[in-house]
Amino acid sequence: MKFFDNDDTKVFALGGLGEVGKNMYCVMHGNELIILDAGVIFPESDLLGVDYVIQDYTFLKKNENKIKGLFITHGHEDHIGGIPFLLNSVDIPVIYAPNQAAGLIRKKLEDRAIKYNNLMVYNENTKVNFKNIKVEFFRTTHSIPDSHGICVTTPNGVIVSTGDFKFDFNPIGPMANLHKMAEIGKRGVTLLMSDSTNALSEGLSVSESKVDDTLSEIFETEKGRIIIATFASNIYRLKSIVDTCKRNKRKIAVFGRSMENNIEISIEGGYIKHRDIFITPEEANRLPDNQVCLLCTGSQGEPLAALSRIANGTHKNVKLRDNDVIIFSSSPIPGNALSISKTINKLYLRGVRVYTNTYLSTVHASGHAHEEELKLMLHLLKPKYFMPFHGEYRMLKRHADIAHEIGMNKDNIFVLGNGDVLSIRKGKIKQDKPVQAGDVYVDGNRIGDIGTAVIRDRKIMASDGIVVVISNIDTKNNKLLGNPNITTRGFIQINENEELLHELELISRNAVISRLSNNINYSDIKNEITNSLGSYIYEKTGRKPIILPVIMDIKK
Amino acid sequence: MKFFDNDDTKVFALGGLGEVGKNMYCVMHGNELIILDAGVIFPESDLLGVDYVIQDYTFLKKNENKIKGLFITHGHEDHIGGIPFLLNSVDIPVIYAPNQAAGLIRKKLEDRAIKYNNLMVYNENTKVNFKNIKVEFFRTTHSIPDSHGICVTTPNGVIVSTGDFKFDFNPIGPMANLHKMAEIGKRGVTLLMSDSTNALSEGLSVSESKVDDTLSEIFETEKGRIIIATFASNIYRLKSIVDTCKRNKRKIAVFGRSMENNIEISIEGGYIKHRDIFITPEEANRLPDNQVCLLCTGSQGEPLAALSRIANGTHKNVKLRDNDVIIFSSSPIPGNALSISKTINKLYLRGVRVYTNTYLSTVHASGHAHEEELKLMLHLLKPKYFMPFHGEYRMLKRHADIAHEIGMNKDNIFVLGNGDVLSIRKGKIKQDKPVQAGDVYVDGNRIGDIGTAVIRDRKIMASDGIVVVISNIDTKNNKLLGNPNITTRGFIQINENEELLHELELISRNAVISRLSNNINYSDIKNEITNSLGSYIYEKTGRKPIILPVIMDIKK
Repeated sequence: MKFFDNDDTKVFALGGLGEVGKNMYCVMHGNELIILDAGVIFPESDLLGVDYVIQDYTFLKKNENKIKGLFITHGHEDHIGGIPFLLNSVDIPVIYAPNQAAGLIRKKLEDRAIKYNNLMVYNENTKVNFKNIKVEFFRTTHSIPDSHGICVTTPNGVIVSTGDFKFDFNPIGPMANLHKMAEIGKRGVTLLMSDSTNALSEGLSVSESKVDDTLSEIFETEKGRIIIATFASNIYRLKSIVDTCKRNKRKIAVFGRSMENNIEISIEGGYIKHRDIFITPEEANRLPDNQVCLLCTGSQGEPLAALSRIANGTHKNVKLRDNDVIIFSSSPIPGNALSISKTINKLYLRGVRVYTNTYLSTVHASGHAHEEELKLMLHLLKPKYFMPFHGEYRMLKRHADIAHEIGMNKDNIFVLGNGDVLSIRKGKIKQDKPVQAGDVYVDGNRIGDIGTAVIRDRKIMASDGIVVVISNIDTKNNKLLGNPNITTRGFIQINENEELLHELELISRNAVISRLSNNINYSDIKNEITNSLGSYIYEKTGRKPIILPVIMDIKK
Repeated sequence: MKFFDNDDTKVFALGGLGEVGKNMYCVMHGNELIILDAGVIFPESDLLGVDYVIQDYTFLKKNENKIKGLFITHGHEDHIGGIPFLLNSVDIPVIYAPNQAAGLIRKKLEDRAIKYNNLMVYNENTKVNFKNIKVEFFRTTHSIPDSHGICVTTPNGVIVSTGDFKFDFNPIGPMANLHKMAEIGKRGVTLLMSDSTNALSEGLSVSESKVDDTLSEIFETEKGRIIIATFASNIYRLKSIVDTCKRNKRKIAVFGRSMENNIEISIEGGYIKHRDIFITPEEANRLPDNQVCLLCTGSQGEPLAALSRIANGTHKNVKLRDNDVIIFSSSPIPGNALSISKTINKLYLRGVRVYTNTYLSTVHASGHAHEEELKLMLHLLKPKYFMPFHGEYRMLKRHADIAHEIGMNKDNIFVLGNGDVLSIRKGKIKQDKPVQAGDVYVDGNRIGDIGTAVIRDRKIMASDGIVVVISNIDTKNNKLLGNPNITTRGFIQINENEELLHELELISRNAVISRLSNNINYSDIKNEITNSLGSYIYEKTGRKPIILPVIMDIKK
């Protein structure tokens, strides 16, 4: 009898391994398949024009009839952002999400006019039973309320996903349920999948209460307006800010749609109180400076976000004042360092004071566990096998090393990639043959109609522009009608380079004429235009634009 | 008598204030104008396709007859990179540069086939005297040999530029000339301009010798090949690596053209010894692993650099081996964090070990002074007035605060921008009206023929592509001939979206026909195409490509 057959339980990621984002993990047993999370990842800067990257759904489409449900650990974009795309592609009978995530999902589906009636809210006491698979939940701490780990019991063993978590011994929200983790660990965990985001960070993460203390100090001493930029998804931070404003008798005006949405949903869910503290920008402008807090998006220097427009002096409602104080209650996401420092420079230039997160002023704390917290999770759950997830390769690798350092056998630790499959049989795990996984690009509202060729063209045009050459050919008489028409975009300033453009016209003309014959061949003419124009342009300008020859046959 | 007249000495920056890069500072008295440095800055990522940004030369062109010479502090690109462009635009009678910089400038001019016969090499004892202006030099420490500060004596006072510097009390090269700085300070400095790059960093910078120690340790313990990526311009680091290899009996193969150039020029200048230690990649492949060091570019994760190709497995000569060790002897330049971590992830995936600069392993030190060193410079030179230079606004601001904290009067400190002018009269300084300054873009080999409109088009095409619509109109008979031709680049995968493209054809056809009339108006037709196609495309795809309507009049 072979190890792998239909009685095995399969576990694999369609996203989330080797990357921080587009999380999607699958557990399959026989005819039952459950999905844990369905996130997006924001594209790296070389994926020009791509708005989101999502998972390859091929496996899910092929196994659509097995899908029992999608289980959401918490409401961040890298865990719920893919839901609209997934629902448009694959039949998902039911989505289970905790309360705050459910609110965000509902808003997301509403915005995209997607009707879906099977969104169920779970809490820590919910149990979901299918024929072979049983699902239960345990409360964790993260930067958004209602974050949960998921415990999946299968005939072959227990699989646990931590979701995103930290251990905060002085949290702003409820304490993580250590007892339930301990109990699950005692019952026996076959495979643990645990958050690796901060595996490279030593010690313990900073408590959210420490941030709360710093914000309180700043609010107690500053007399000007306080402008705070933070992540719209960091609900506990928003709660902290609201409560601090309440104590210090400041009203809050909110800028940025994602911030407004998150606050609205958090007030509805009861996570943020004091609805009456929120005022309009106009009301804020009428209050004395020391009674005002402006809460805005743009902590990453995003050019269109509220804070950037405030720094540029182009914000409709907010003009900076000399005694304004700006707090970046955030950390730089890698890749944003330049745009953030640009924003800070502009703020300095306008003479206001800026607080950023340093060891002297703790105005931000991460929502992800550091090394010692990862060890605590491993100790509590005592898994037999371990697969670090939610991280770039070096984070997964470090997390694996951490598990080994506290005593796990290396053979029981799997550092895998998306699509790699683990097969569980009676509490034993082996690696199985992979399933299809990969990156699918979403640009605008269409999935997957952008491929490598389109991105490559975008890159060339981004750097050197395009030169369109239109030639009218009378094929009957084998004649070029007039000179080819040269139109460029993104190549050169047209009005200052008429001579060059005229040269291009003549070169194209010669190229066409040299290839006119009784046996006329369009692609031959096009190649000649591309080659002769391309080398002339490179010689004159050092640029390599796309050359797009179009031939119009006027006898058509 | 007014304060500002022809007897005043003027000091201003054409580049280098509010930015780290494109340094160029001018001192002008009567009919004498000297220029200090002529660097480039590498464009921020939103300047699509721009290769370099240089200074606006308008002022220099207008005052060409006054220019006495260009003085170079040291051979880094942000101080010499603009010389080819400057020489092509403005007549510079003589360039004074220290030996290492002169070697690099010669190579640069050679590469661009620019003939220039007035490059003079100065050393610390050189004095250059014009009618009113006298120039002398003092040796500093930086990451490249022959770095100098410049002391300019004018009838109205003494102006000092530090160039780039740090104080390293255990340098790899010669010690900075503290005595000469002290002596200049004692004589009396009217205006000091000092390097602000690391004004935000506390304490002292790390000594280059500490890096040398760490490298020695690594070389003594590691048995595999050692692959080091560092800045090609960091000559003392290269020297350190060469000497360490010599002691540990490793040969060096060099990868990357800028690295090869810098090493060649440094060997010629005598800064790097042991020419026989360098071997070809092929020779390296034949030696045992523990006798090999590969020295390469790519410490910033640049996709085409040697290290990236090694990490990708696409390097012609170097395939990674299990016991290889990679050292990033560098720090991330802001904006490169993502590409660096991408490279590190790939290296981890290939199973090799990676050293980066952390507090545990000092494999890099900055070449710029930290706070306490900046104070030392201020104390040594005791200037009456101070203008922090070489830095973003927040760095200049912090440097100004540092000067104030050690006792300078705020009124004597000028935090300025490019083009702002200081007027010195008999040892007193006031701000004068500004001169023209700004950013000029170089794309390929052409200066300034890229403007905002071109960059804007590139941005749109980068994100959404272009749709070209060509309509053949018989204006005599007022008829559209055939359907408009639709060609796209960077918009959508063509073969999978024929239906959409056909729709675009029909919409364009209707647009043209709706505007045909006896009084035919091309721009009217074009607008109609752009509008109807634009809104249809946005509705269907969520994208906003450039729509480029071209009308061909076949009767022409």
